[in-house]
Amino acid sequence: MLCINGVRQRRLFTPEGCFSPRYDHLSEPESAKDVPAQIPQPAVGRLSLYFRELYRLREAEITTTNSKELGKLVNVSPPVVRRDLSALGTIGQRGVGYSVDALIDRIGQVLGSGQQWEVVLVGVGSLGDALLRYRGFSRLGFKLTAAFDIDPGRIGSTIGGVEVLDAKELERVLTATPPHLAILAVPADNAAEVASLLVRLGVSGILNFAPTTLRLPPRIAVVNVDLASELQRLAFAVQSGT
Amino acid sequence: MLCINGVRQRRLFTPEGCFSPRYDHLSEPESAKDVPAQIPQPAVGRLSLYFRELYRLREAEITTTNSKELGKLVNVSPPVVRRDLSALGTIGQRGVGYSVDALIDRIGQVLGSGQQWEVVLVGVGSLGDALLRYRGFSRLGFKLTAAFDIDPGRIGSTIGGVEVLDAKELERVLTATPPHLAILAVPADNAAEVASLLVRLGVSGILNFAPTTLRLPPRIAVVNVDLASELQRLAFAVQSGT
Repeated sequence: MLCINGVRQRRLFTPEGCFSPRYDHLSEPESAKDVPAQIPQPAVGRLSLYFRELYRLREAEITTTNSKELGKLVNVSPPVVRRDLSALGTIGQRGVGYSVDALIDRIGQVLGSGQQWEVVLVGVGSLGDALLRYRGFSRLGFKLTAAFDIDPGRIGSTIGGVEVLDAKELERVLTATPPHLAILAVPADNAAEVASLLVRLGVSGILNFAPTTLRLPPRIAVVNVDLASELQRLAFAVQSGT
Repeated sequence: MLCINGVRQRRLFTPEGCFSPRYDHLSEPESAKDVPAQIPQPAVGRLSLYFRELYRLREAEITTTNSKELGKLVNVSPPVVRRDLSALGTIGQRGVGYSVDALIDRIGQVLGSGQQWEVVLVGVGSLGDALLRYRGFSRLGFKLTAAFDIDPGRIGSTIGGVEVLDAKELERVLTATPPHLAILAVPADNAAEVASLLVRLGVSGILNFAPTTLRLPPRIAVVNVDLASELQRLAFAVQSGT
């Protein structure tokens, strides 16, 4: 059972089950008979963090690192770092540490950042605009190839190097050049309809910023980012701590 | 141990420990001797979702709901919904269900949305701009009271009803009117410095969009949203499923 932000995908799961500080759909642990992915779910997020920091080290022309340094950069203890990296088959050298390049390659491969992912964006409001301009995506191999909106004021403009197309063109464009992933930044009321269309056109994963729960076939991966809920979680943490 | 996106806050914890699909800092369970918060960490995120959907029901002038309907709206099973709501002390009525208003009040109270939270934003790039315009915050009781940037092109403009001030004014303004929370949307390289300043000026919680790990005192709550990492998690999910 893969839980991405609590949306259960009936494809794979870990012996640890699937826990989330946000959503806990599974109250009972799953059996381990069907575990294609060797990486425990909690480690996936940490890999993302290591990758981010390793990239930064490389840009600073640093060629080797160790579990202590990496751990400090991502706020994870060195034993956990070492365990995560050895699960990838990466073997550091005693006294030397890890090769930054080798780690970037290996983690990138595992996370899928080794390949080029084509991503479309639907919804070019201020948030969609920001996502088109966001420079963090391309370094991880994510290429925003098209953007769609219904607003005539947006259609035809170029933002972050991507031309905004009329939403009416969605079917034609996606049929011609099917993307891997889609980012949904439309209002909540339109999200379900757009998501269904994207799935019908072959998209296998959706990053959803619309503040609504998408109900899609289990084979579709969904990651939800609800900005107001994030702030609410923060408020709860602050309130609970006082 | 409160884990918000894996940043461990040494203040409170649940007997379940703290699990995250992203970061798992705790490999060993904590003892239960110190649990001021009665709500298990995984339930907090679900409460956010219920709240969001209940608000929508209220806007549609629907006055009662039940665990089946709520569960469907947020993709959670009815028994879990009932368990979450009874943990709040909310008692539904057999055959009738729950009062939407009563639930909104009670959950809002628990999540801190009953009160008005004053929030400042630092960093008004395209993402900060989008956050200022985001309309989901105010309905949950979050009021963006000030925004700061260093760009003369931004300073003095009004976005989403909030005036953008010179970042040099941060200390003066925050000392005069201390906010509860801050949203950080500055480049990664500036994040640590700005975060330290905010903490020094009395901010207790930071919603961090900068793609870097903030190292702050344990009493400061931090929720991290790293947009590229979210897309990376999605890619991993899609890749693992095929």
